[in-house]
Amino acid sequence: MPRYRLDIEYDGSAYAGWQRQASQHSVQAAIEQAIFRFCGEEAGLRGAGRTDAGVHALGQVAHVDLCRDWPADTVCNALNAYMQIAGETVAIISAAKAPDDFDARFSAIRRHYLYRIVNRRAPLALMRNQAWWVSKPLDAGAMHEAAQALVGRHDFTTFRSAHCQAKSPLKTLDRLDVVRSGDEIEIRATARSFLHNQVRSIVGTLKRVGEGAWSAADVERALAAADRSACGPVAPPQGLYLVAVDY
Amino acid sequence: MPRYRLDIEYDGSAYAGWQRQASQHSVQAAIEQAIFRFCGEEAGLRGAGRTDAGVHALGQVAHVDLCRDWPADTVCNALNAYMQIAGETVAIISAAKAPDDFDARFSAIRRHYLYRIVNRRAPLALMRNQAWWVSKPLDAGAMHEAAQALVGRHDFTTFRSAHCQAKSPLKTLDRLDVVRSGDEIEIRATARSFLHNQVRSIVGTLKRVGEGAWSAADVERALAAADRSACGPVAPPQGLYLVAVDY
Repeated sequence: MPRYRLDIEYDGSAYAGWQRQASQHSVQAAIEQAIFRFCGEEAGLRGAGRTDAGVHALGQVAHVDLCRDWPADTVCNALNAYMQIAGETVAIISAAKAPDDFDARFSAIRRHYLYRIVNRRAPLALMRNQAWWVSKPLDAGAMHEAAQALVGRHDFTTFRSAHCQAKSPLKTLDRLDVVRSGDEIEIRATARSFLHNQVRSIVGTLKRVGEGAWSAADVERALAAADRSACGPVAPPQGLYLVAVDY
Repeated sequence: MPRYRLDIEYDGSAYAGWQRQASQHSVQAAIEQAIFRFCGEEAGLRGAGRTDAGVHALGQVAHVDLCRDWPADTVCNALNAYMQIAGETVAIISAAKAPDDFDARFSAIRRHYLYRIVNRRAPLALMRNQAWWVSKPLDAGAMHEAAQALVGRHDFTTFRSAHCQAKSPLKTLDRLDVVRSGDEIEIRATARSFLHNQVRSIVGTLKRVGEGAWSAADVERALAAADRSACGPVAPPQGLYLVAVDY
């Protein structure tokens, strides 16, 4: 069976997340339904990252095996056409044949996330479901400085959802940059893999630093505590984007 | 009566346009309802530009007279709070006291519009209501070159809606730039004032140049014809943004 790699963009606002669920619509189900309409196959997708409800993707990656050997462009165009008809906010950016041992989840060596904050007094109109609105002025420089204590290999228990299924809380964060550009603050995080809610937990904690409630030392202490209750409030999903996956 | 200038951002997707209407919801009505909820006044707004249904604004400007002399910040915060409650995708970026002779519409000396095209094979997911998706490759350089024939003072009858209420089709276009950045093509237009549908008519015509169907000379001929039927198809509203108004 030929294997296909799909690179996927989605607005996660209308979905219960990436993962297929019994009672709610998901991004995975949207694509699997399009595959069924295209070729009648009940094929299962595997995605690189299981994004939560409301989280977006600019470059999610998934693989799927199909019985028939379709040209990759045919698959791409057909899935987009069926998803357009169904009113999904999901687009296949590209489809390509992949080797049999390519696994979107397990072959990934790096995942890149972006978290967008709009930091201004006025509420959001155009970016309402695409960023976190924070009205209190944030010091992005202080957030960036405090973030550096989290880069490297650590026990991230503090920044991990109680529902996280990973065997170990040990992860290596390769990059955690906070940059302001006008009203927007972009937080970019890169790692081989992340714990459930890790980026949003980190962002919620860094926001406390940005508003002056916490110091960089407080973040270090929270990390060292390896205790979920030491975490700041988890940042909301609509600011988070899975940007790219490296293989 | 104190006069207030409001600078306004909105996602126009859910509105029948700026202008108040009997049977459909408009941006103007959303703000007027918030004013009524805030202070009980049935005040009428006047906006700098009457954007169409689906058209967005980053910097629409309007003025309103209120009976009581509220601090401008109070007006700004209250209107935003009431519009948030009502679920409007409209935000007051700033409010300021304005002189009695300030008129958001008639004092304006320049209006700046942006039109966003996303030019790629894949349909839009995240930018679905915020740009025009054009899948056929466009030559932005050719579009920019052809656009220059429209800059200056001309009879824009060709690029004017049949419903346009302006007395004269003579307008001076100060700037019309087409710039590509990755998949996105941005078209920026500046003039003292525009005819109804002028920017979208121009963009639809320039798209024909971008895809190679028309030459720059064809655009010049269409302008010189001063005939609505010489216009290319009007570009859809969701790519258009009123960016700023100068006074």
